[in-house]
Amino acid sequence: MIGASWPLGRRTFIGGLTGVATYAASRPALAADDPLPSWNDGAARQSIVDFVRRVTESGGKDFVPPEQRIATFDNDGTLWSEQPVYFQVAFALDQVRAMAKQHPEWKTKEPFKTVLSGDSHALARLGEKDLLLVVAETHSGMTVEQFRNTVLKWIATARNPRFKRPYTDLVFKPMLELLAYLRGSGFRTFIVSGGGIEFMRPWVEKVYGIPPEQVVGSSAETKYQVVNGTPELIKLPRVEFIDDGPGKPVAINRFIGLRPILAFGNSDGDRQMLEWTAAGKGARLMGLVHHTDADREWAYDRNSSVGKLDKAWDEAVQRGWPIVDMKRDWKVIYPFET
Amino acid sequence: MIGASWPLGRRTFIGGLTGVATYAASRPALAADDPLPSWNDGAARQSIVDFVRRVTESGGKDFVPPEQRIATFDNDGTLWSEQPVYFQVAFALDQVRAMAKQHPEWKTKEPFKTVLSGDSHALARLGEKDLLLVVAETHSGMTVEQFRNTVLKWIATARNPRFKRPYTDLVFKPMLELLAYLRGSGFRTFIVSGGGIEFMRPWVEKVYGIPPEQVVGSSAETKYQVVNGTPELIKLPRVEFIDDGPGKPVAINRFIGLRPILAFGNSDGDRQMLEWTAAGKGARLMGLVHHTDADREWAYDRNSSVGKLDKAWDEAVQRGWPIVDMKRDWKVIYPFET
Repeated sequence: MIGASWPLGRRTFIGGLTGVATYAASRPALAADDPLPSWNDGAARQSIVDFVRRVTESGGKDFVPPEQRIATFDNDGTLWSEQPVYFQVAFALDQVRAMAKQHPEWKTKEPFKTVLSGDSHALARLGEKDLLLVVAETHSGMTVEQFRNTVLKWIATARNPRFKRPYTDLVFKPMLELLAYLRGSGFRTFIVSGGGIEFMRPWVEKVYGIPPEQVVGSSAETKYQVVNGTPELIKLPRVEFIDDGPGKPVAINRFIGLRPILAFGNSDGDRQMLEWTAAGKGARLMGLVHHTDADREWAYDRNSSVGKLDKAWDEAVQRGWPIVDMKRDWKVIYPFET
Repeated sequence: MIGASWPLGRRTFIGGLTGVATYAASRPALAADDPLPSWNDGAARQSIVDFVRRVTESGGKDFVPPEQRIATFDNDGTLWSEQPVYFQVAFALDQVRAMAKQHPEWKTKEPFKTVLSGDSHALARLGEKDLLLVVAETHSGMTVEQFRNTVLKWIATARNPRFKRPYTDLVFKPMLELLAYLRGSGFRTFIVSGGGIEFMRPWVEKVYGIPPEQVVGSSAETKYQVVNGTPELIKLPRVEFIDDGPGKPVAINRFIGLRPILAFGNSDGDRQMLEWTAAGKGARLMGLVHHTDADREWAYDRNSSVGKLDKAWDEAVQRGWPIVDMKRDWKVIYPFET
């Protein structure tokens, strides 16, 4: 995801710890003979199954030892939806409303005034800088545990405006199957997202089966302090790292220390991660999720302000990387459909 | 480790990828009834065994679910030796000699001139700033893969001046047993070191059984660039993060996202990691390795320039944290003794 200038092509934050029970399955139904039951037969599905067979076939020329089977996935637009705004932006806007009482100055201070006004047209005109400020203010000034609890509460209660469902219902069933299939084939599956690492960690283990230490994302600085004998980590309103574009290979190197052999994304912000993956020796699989289904999800690509897919698409076509056409390739999109 | 002002209380760098075969066992012999055969009976050993039993006992009041069994270990002085200088400092000094031909200006430029002079007295007088400069110069200007290969070559060929053995022979057998015992009890074991993350990653999996993504350390910035169509990550001579003192809880939160329930260190640089671990809810174990055996290893604590143990010692005594006395508690120190 990310790759567009709006909203929030740049992010900030830092997140929390463990899980929340959600509806979305972390254990998708796996037929014994079909690890990907929600995928239609086609080139995308075939390239995945072929790749997994090649790298796991003992004695085969493309065999990769399990300790090097690293798979990285973008989150927004790749594992869950990202419309009409990145879900973390929805969280930040909700937090402005929730925190307004403690910030009487927001009534007259932009961009908070606009957020609190409820004027959806004015809200839609907020720029990246405004949203960054909103994220910085709503994601700092508390301990990491307090922030985690705030995220968990929001995940449990907030609803996506189109589907009227929890945001964690809007995860892609075929991708849950792919994650489970890869882990069952000896892979370690990582999220490498432009989203905030501390916004994702509280819920991804339950939703995707990915533990906190396998979540890589954007982060803000934290400060260690001891207050009345109790150590605390306080979230600061200062960007530490933006895990987007060229930041993705940098973060993969920093957090994982191994080059992925498989990577999936959906936007121009994932391009360098795919290139970095492709440039390693041996068998590789780079994939893109293309949002083509306005009925069941959303349809957007080159001209979208969210999850813009333009240069990465051209590169994928040119290099023969599989492009997953959601409408064509996926029998089911969300777990709640079945 | 770290906690002293010399040498290199502050570090820099960033490291590499997978393994090197070394002598030191990643699979220590485990007697069926004794997970810690190199440990003498005593309070330290007993507190470890009791703790593991309590947190793994299904239905017990101190039970911790496997996904929360996080254990963090300092490296220098906790998992391997750190005398007469941190081993990464020895690496950096060797690299000055190895790179001298490409840097004719070093002949007249301090501190490189002193390093190249072979004057051990002058070398011993180099300050922290000098060594930081040496590390920055020898750990940058190459790709991450080139640096990894340099580290692997050094690990394979360099010898500790006292034992005339590869540095990776100087790992502590009782700690290898402890790591294996914890992993066998459902823990994930992490290194959280002031040392460079890219200096450790190339060899720790083979030596300690810890995969690259479970290594947390100090880092330098890297830059993503595409040269003649090939993506590269270049190491820059700029500090990104110092994983020491209050940096340890910050890095634990950033990389792991869960609070450890067990942490081991050996110096004042580990104090905040131990305090952060101790401040969580439920059963905890915080331990210190005390270097008390000048015959088999080294003996040093409050007044050492390397691995100073002073305030953390006082705190451990006051709070009843186990202190491992190497002379008293360990039957064997290095794997090659047996």
